[in-house]
Amino acid sequence: MVMFKKQYDELATKVNDYLRITLDSMKKYPKIIFDSMEYSLFAGGKRLRPVMLLASHKLLEGDLEESLPLAGGLEMIHTYSLVHDDLPAMDNDDFRRGVPTNHKVFGEGIAILCGDALLNLAYETMIDNALRRPEKLINHLNAINTIAKAAGIRGMIGGQVVDLENEGKDIDPDILQYIHEHKTGALFMASLKASIMLEDPPENISKALLEYGKSLGLAFQIIDDILDVVGDDKKLGKMTGRDREKDKATYVDKYGLEKSWSIAKELCDNAIAQISIFGPEGEFFIQLANFIIDRHN
Amino acid sequence: MVMFKKQYDELATKVNDYLRITLDSMKKYPKIIFDSMEYSLFAGGKRLRPVMLLASHKLLEGDLEESLPLAGGLEMIHTYSLVHDDLPAMDNDDFRRGVPTNHKVFGEGIAILCGDALLNLAYETMIDNALRRPEKLINHLNAINTIAKAAGIRGMIGGQVVDLENEGKDIDPDILQYIHEHKTGALFMASLKASIMLEDPPENISKALLEYGKSLGLAFQIIDDILDVVGDDKKLGKMTGRDREKDKATYVDKYGLEKSWSIAKELCDNAIAQISIFGPEGEFFIQLANFIIDRHN
Repeated sequence: MVMFKKQYDELATKVNDYLRITLDSMKKYPKIIFDSMEYSLFAGGKRLRPVMLLASHKLLEGDLEESLPLAGGLEMIHTYSLVHDDLPAMDNDDFRRGVPTNHKVFGEGIAILCGDALLNLAYETMIDNALRRPEKLINHLNAINTIAKAAGIRGMIGGQVVDLENEGKDIDPDILQYIHEHKTGALFMASLKASIMLEDPPENISKALLEYGKSLGLAFQIIDDILDVVGDDKKLGKMTGRDREKDKATYVDKYGLEKSWSIAKELCDNAIAQISIFGPEGEFFIQLANFIIDRHN
Repeated sequence: MVMFKKQYDELATKVNDYLRITLDSMKKYPKIIFDSMEYSLFAGGKRLRPVMLLASHKLLEGDLEESLPLAGGLEMIHTYSLVHDDLPAMDNDDFRRGVPTNHKVFGEGIAILCGDALLNLAYETMIDNALRRPEKLINHLNAINTIAKAAGIRGMIGGQVVDLENEGKDIDPDILQYIHEHKTGALFMASLKASIMLEDPPENISKALLEYGKSLGLAFQIIDDILDVVGDDKKLGKMTGRDREKDKATYVDKYGLEKSWSIAKELCDNAIAQISIFGPEGEFFIQLANFIIDRHN
């Protein structure tokens, strides 16, 4: 576990450094939007998606310098979705990761533009990177395409829409699963798919990675629901019970705490089973699954 | 002028058909977001940017089937920017093109997601198209890159931020020009630059097209300001005087009506002068400049 933590932190530091350099190159543009983007990009996120992208690219023996801008782009997309999701017209959240949400600090207008700017910058960054890799242009375009599809109406945005539509309604378990698979699962999966697009591994290898991502993504969301009920406000950095207050569809409402835990645990075991194909090299992903099931924020 | 109108309508119809087909392929995704995207994409826009992209691609002897998805993407980006710009936290407009704005019909939450979805779909569409053109992959990536830069913090969003920051302030003419060149000018220019990226014409040809775009883009915005003061609500399809009500920086405030007209006219003449390099083939662009200076909405 110590080794895992060290590896995780090394990858997360790579992502942070990359985001820092990318933002610093924008300092000559309107200061307030720069400040607003910086505020949310560096508000203490776990960097889970970009770390997964880099770790899976490493597992496939890729060069991390090549995938780093895709990892950065993925984190920008994740961050934009949080900034917009927190807006009064959406989830109306005042705190995120222990600090006031973007619109609470910069106002709603700038928060909307900040999200737009982060989404657009993700594509600018990923396309710039692709243009620097003429020998692997098709691989990079396929990777960007994978991330784009996961971020759009067929993926994350689709999940957000169905989530918004179903607030306060008694919803079907199928719809609940649709929301989770799309709103959270799609970008999760995209982190693994993108590395697959870059390296074209054999079919059984990509299948194992994708099955892992599918199970773990859903487990992650269920744990999120559980933490919303039993979590500690201070550790979570946001108000617990918010989802229930807003009558949002959660696994805990549908199945109760105990059953939700056992579903999450089973999904995690499923995920870990997929990774055996990699032998000792897969250790990081096994530990990552344990980390997700044991997390407190 | 009759010939021009016919050519313009033919290109605009191509764009409309393309957007229709693209949207129809999304009908299986959450209905409300589809309806919301459709509502704003088909609310009677002039399709000026995509028509300019197609017309300049034609002028450079390109194949329009190849540039159509870029033209469609550009229009999606333009439309998303209007949907977000109309939100209460931004310009707070109730009408656009004669009909209630997106958030008035679908609510603010869906309007935010609709804008996000359109921006993301623009990239999905343009990247899909690039992947279908392996022989011109670099050209397409450069064209997408040009549009991405124009849409982002270095372009349109930068202009929106400075505009929002300066509401109600007595602003410097330099800042006014910055806002116009970025908020409106950047996508204008991108329509021409994208076609240049696809066909790599000689330097003097690209220079002429770009100078044309620069002058015409600014003229277009000045005319917009003038119409906001002297225009007819019914023809414009929105409430005139809104910019003044909101204390927004306009050319008319800074220079008065008469001087604003003469600046716009001069810019238009400048634009037309650039087009002589194309001989009779350039006629469409000369008429386009006249159309823009004479428009009433």
